Amino acid sequence: MATAAADVGASTARKLENIATPVPPDYVIAQSVKPLNIEEVAKAVGLEPEDYDLYGKKKAKVLINVREKLKGKPDGFYVVVGGITPTPLGEGKSTTTVGLCQALGAHLGKKVFTCLRQPSQGPTFGIKGGAAGGGYSQVIPMDEFNLHLTGDIHAITAANNLLAAAIDARMFHEATQSDKALFNRLCPPNKEGKRSFARVMLKRLAKLGIDKLDPDSLTDEEVTKFARLDLDPEQLTWRRVVDVNDRFLRVITVGQGPDEKGQSRQTGYDISVASEIMAVLALTTGMEDMRERLGNMVVGTSRGGDPVTADDLGVGGALTVLMKDAIHPTLMQTLEGTPVLVHAGPFANIAHGNSSIVADQLALKLVGADGFVVTEAGFGADIGAEKFLNIKCRYSGLRPHCCVVVATVRALKMHGGGPPVVAGKPIDFAYASENLELLEKGTVNLARHISNVRKYGVAAVVAINRFATDTDAEIEMVKKAALAAGAFDAVESTHHAQGGAGAVELGKAVEKACKSLKEDFKFLYPLEAGIKEKIETIAREMYGAGGVSYSSEAEAAIEKYTKQGFSKLPICMAKTQYSFSDNPTLKGAPSGFTLPIRDVRASVGAGFIYPLVGAMSTMPGLPTRPCFYDIDLDLETGDVVGLS
Amino acid sequence: MATAAADVGASTARKLENIATPVPPDYVIAQSVKPLNIEEVAKAVGLEPEDYDLYGKKKAKVLINVREKLKGKPDGFYVVVGGITPTPLGEGKSTTTVGLCQALGAHLGKKVFTCLRQPSQGPTFGIKGGAAGGGYSQVIPMDEFNLHLTGDIHAITAANNLLAAAIDARMFHEATQSDKALFNRLCPPNKEGKRSFARVMLKRLAKLGIDKLDPDSLTDEEVTKFARLDLDPEQLTWRRVVDVNDRFLRVITVGQGPDEKGQSRQTGYDISVASEIMAVLALTTGMEDMRERLGNMVVGTSRGGDPVTADDLGVGGALTVLMKDAIHPTLMQTLEGTPVLVHAGPFANIAHGNSSIVADQLALKLVGADGFVVTEAGFGADIGAEKFLNIKCRYSGLRPHCCVVVATVRALKMHGGGPPVVAGKPIDFAYASENLELLEKGTVNLARHISNVRKYGVAAVVAINRFATDTDAEIEMVKKAALAAGAFDAVESTHHAQGGAGAVELGKAVEKACKSLKEDFKFLYPLEAGIKEKIETIAREMYGAGGVSYSSEAEAAIEKYTKQGFSKLPICMAKTQYSFSDNPTLKGAPSGFTLPIRDVRASVGAGFIYPLVGAMSTMPGLPTRPCFYDIDLDLETGDVVGLS
Repeated sequence: MATAAADVGASTARKLENIATPVPPDYVIAQSVKPLNIEEVAKAVGLEPEDYDLYGKKKAKVLINVREKLKGKPDGFYVVVGGITPTPLGEGKSTTTVGLCQALGAHLGKKVFTCLRQPSQGPTFGIKGGAAGGGYSQVIPMDEFNLHLTGDIHAITAANNLLAAAIDARMFHEATQSDKALFNRLCPPNKEGKRSFARVMLKRLAKLGIDKLDPDSLTDEEVTKFARLDLDPEQLTWRRVVDVNDRFLRVITVGQGPDEKGQSRQTGYDISVASEIMAVLALTTGMEDMRERLGNMVVGTSRGGDPVTADDLGVGGALTVLMKDAIHPTLMQTLEGTPVLVHAGPFANIAHGNSSIVADQLALKLVGADGFVVTEAGFGADIGAEKFLNIKCRYSGLRPHCCVVVATVRALKMHGGGPPVVAGKPIDFAYASENLELLEKGTVNLARHISNVRKYGVAAVVAINRFATDTDAEIEMVKKAALAAGAFDAVESTHHAQGGAGAVELGKAVEKACKSLKEDFKFLYPLEAGIKEKIETIAREMYGAGGVSYSSEAEAAIEKYTKQGFSKLPICMAKTQYSFSDNPTLKGAPSGFTLPIRDVRASVGAGFIYPLVGAMSTMPGLPTRPCFYDIDLDLETGDVVGLS
Repeated sequence: MATAAADVGASTARKLENIATPVPPDYVIAQSVKPLNIEEVAKAVGLEPEDYDLYGKKKAKVLINVREKLKGKPDGFYVVVGGITPTPLGEGKSTTTVGLCQALGAHLGKKVFTCLRQPSQGPTFGIKGGAAGGGYSQVIPMDEFNLHLTGDIHAITAANNLLAAAIDARMFHEATQSDKALFNRLCPPNKEGKRSFARVMLKRLAKLGIDKLDPDSLTDEEVTKFARLDLDPEQLTWRRVVDVNDRFLRVITVGQGPDEKGQSRQTGYDISVASEIMAVLALTTGMEDMRERLGNMVVGTSRGGDPVTADDLGVGGALTVLMKDAIHPTLMQTLEGTPVLVHAGPFANIAHGNSSIVADQLALKLVGADGFVVTEAGFGADIGAEKFLNIKCRYSGLRPHCCVVVATVRALKMHGGGPPVVAGKPIDFAYASENLELLEKGTVNLARHISNVRKYGVAAVVAINRFATDTDAEIEMVKKAALAAGAFDAVESTHHAQGGAGAVELGKAVEKACKSLKEDFKFLYPLEAGIKEKIETIAREMYGAGGVSYSSEAEAAIEKYTKQGFSKLPICMAKTQYSFSDNPTLKGAPSGFTLPIRDVRASVGAGFIYPLVGAMSTMPGLPTRPCFYDIDLDLETGDVVGLS
């Protein structure tokens, strides 16, 4: 197999020295390693200075046109990291993703790229803290990773809220103006008295079947159709967003000022990463495609039943302009100097929970043949990996060679019926000492995830993220269960405590799996299937459901979207991540249950239909003592303290 | 006089070539000049690569610690640009500021820096368009100037809204928990059962007069005082912000979700540049000072009448962390390659309307002796320049050598009683042809501004921004009136049509004024004066008012702030910019009127009291056809089109 090393500078990967026991706090480790200047990392992966834009000294945006330059180069191996069904104990998926890459890059001499999601700033100041990995497997500088980064989420917030303002302003002006007056304002005469359509208006004209280029030639009926979007306030789906955990914005009433003339309505805010624009960024394949998707986003329905888009409002171009820098992924580095691309971070329930297509495409070319790109999928493999395979890979055209399924002994014990765990409370003895009985029962969860992955023709490698209290017998039991369920391999990994050195065996197993792959990749469902058929396939094949039930809202929505021509979109299930079922307390591998579909929504611009299984929270809150109490700037050193 | 040229690279200033007549649209001119890589500009002004962080290839943040490096170097001349009372005709203040600098740098061989405000993104997509100057006097790239820039406004939005979320969440938790429970959550025991105070809590303890470091030693009464902020919902002053013209957010009700348990309340959004955090950024003198100011921001009053601050909420450190990159000004360039620092853009009514102290301090050191720093003050000189002198210069310790007062013949005619002007409608004949009678009457407005400036001991140079339709007799009349009113000089300038070449005479006049200055600078009022005394001094001396009246709300607020110890802050009048008086239709130089103070508010962290004269809009709206209809990305070239 050809090697891609010839045109690439010397690797910046370097093994960690001075690993401490017990493992110090994350920010202490992060600050103990001096990051390389990102230009060095860029040079090492073969980028020229014109290929990227620096954002300070430790971050750079890699320009997407690099893909054109590398067109003829072969792709590397493509690895997705999923996990067992999550528990409050944490499985360490991000940490495993980073640790695996450190092993591949700094210990096994491979070209490697980690592709990660950009975290929301909300949880950083709320309960959860940061999301840069942990222990000796982290992305650095962790404060830059967790805050602002290169402004992509801020751009999404700005674009999302410009569209929201455009909607309310348009409804306001339509309510107070005649069709004629509206039209005259939308197409005002220039100094010579000539009217013209803005370029974006041509899209609406085409949609309405009006093929005239001279505004003055429109009939009265056409003027009305063109100028009056006639949005139904009851059917508006676009909400505002903010990248803060602000629970008081979940349900609000807007338009209560005297100048808004009583046109108040109830709406609400989501956290910014729940914006459809985030999903667009994650799923787009290029600037032209992004312009299309942003313009096609449906914000609501007219009183006549037609979908109304961002381009109908005339704002798709402005949204693209706001997002034009965000389309370039951000280059960072791990503790062991291997390159990372951070890009997009859509919700894993109402969206697909995977980092961007653009970053993966770039990284696969940059590592070239025999190199590795490792990317993480949100939640458990039933959700994140399923959406990676059926939505992201469908739009990207890329196919994974291997799926890593991260498991921990502790979490499997919980799936076997172990006692509940409450954050901040001491952990039960069952988790801190050997308990083969609970563990054995819990392995059914892992087995189901493995067999799920195998349905796509992708090899499953189980990474057992080993904790200090796990016993050898426990590790052995998980390995056996994994292999029995059809895993290509199952290996323990101690990357949290040891960095890449602890994930070398995992790295070797992943390499072997990638190189041994012989099967053909297959999707779970064809796009041509109806919305219900697709939902039911996922429910049965991935979740183990016996059947699916639909509320009347869901039935009506499916009918509406089918009529509007959106039924060919892939399905993005918004389901709890804590169980294969809709009931978060059903651990293990439940089956035979009926999956209830409460409602069905669509992100038409991003390109998926999302059925709601139960209520999804899209705006977290702040606790009495949020993380921010500990966060400050050390005025002596300029370092950020207290981030976890 | 010593020259600072020795340690500075070759200037990047270069005269414009191929100037077209008539003047093409702004974006066409902007795209006709290829910007230098900003590293070249940085090098030319004497910056080393470690002195700045690149943000792409055309923008860089100059790190504030450069001030330390240049400590021993003398400052350059400091020039502030104000204007006559604004009219809808536009006086071209930003354009004059840029044109003057192009003249000084590219035509007169001077070291020069332009210090400008960062514009809000709201108007860019609304009515007004961009704010990078115009014609042949612009900052480039204009799309980067008008959008995102280096993320400072996004950081302000994030910080402002984190604080807002912290307020509502705290009120929610206080309403549902006992004092003891609150305290236990604020100071939870660690694994060993020991409690401790977070560092930020020490500030609240000190404020409460509790000098204990062990949480367990607090008495029950102290626990209550410490843990319960007891914010009065009726006296909350902190609002949320968004950098979008979103009129439907002016008045809203939050907290209407079922989980917020009926704790809904009415509040609203301002545009981001109206945030107190923007004013803090503009007035801070360094990182430590910013940490103090952000922590000291008062968000409301407790039921007991005490001011409650961001640090009482435990969030001042997190706000500083969010703002730590925003404190560094952004380096850009003019069309003629002279350096620009863009930094902060506070409102000019409820805040002081001037770019940052930090940028001016940096620029004055970078140009050194015999160099020039030109900065613009918002609105007319009665507001922007007054606040520059009494607020900004008070906090910075800097003193201007010259104040440029920008005037146009057309605007002076309007002050002389010329017919009203409506945007988009053809302009009246009075403005497009010679009318010495109207003009002569209108010069009283200019004269008042000149005599105002002279009261500070600062030289006033009048820049007559000449339009093609102005006659020589008209220009002559303005010059004479200016000199008669005490101006150091009055010169016409044609920088819009000709770039720096059109402002050479203005540049020479400014240089002469700076070098001739003999008077001592004096403030208009001492800080020690009472709030009313300071208000009345500004009203009489700057506006020509006969007296001041106070509403009962204003009286109560003055009493409250005086009691809370804030009466020593400078005054920031929130008054219409369209008249010396409170009545926007009173043109010219009205006098003897009574100035009504409707209410008085405080930005304690930023450091000023702001009396409200009439209602100030802090959230613009979108018209039926906003600018965004024309804005798009040219997918062939990657250029932004339609920005004006």
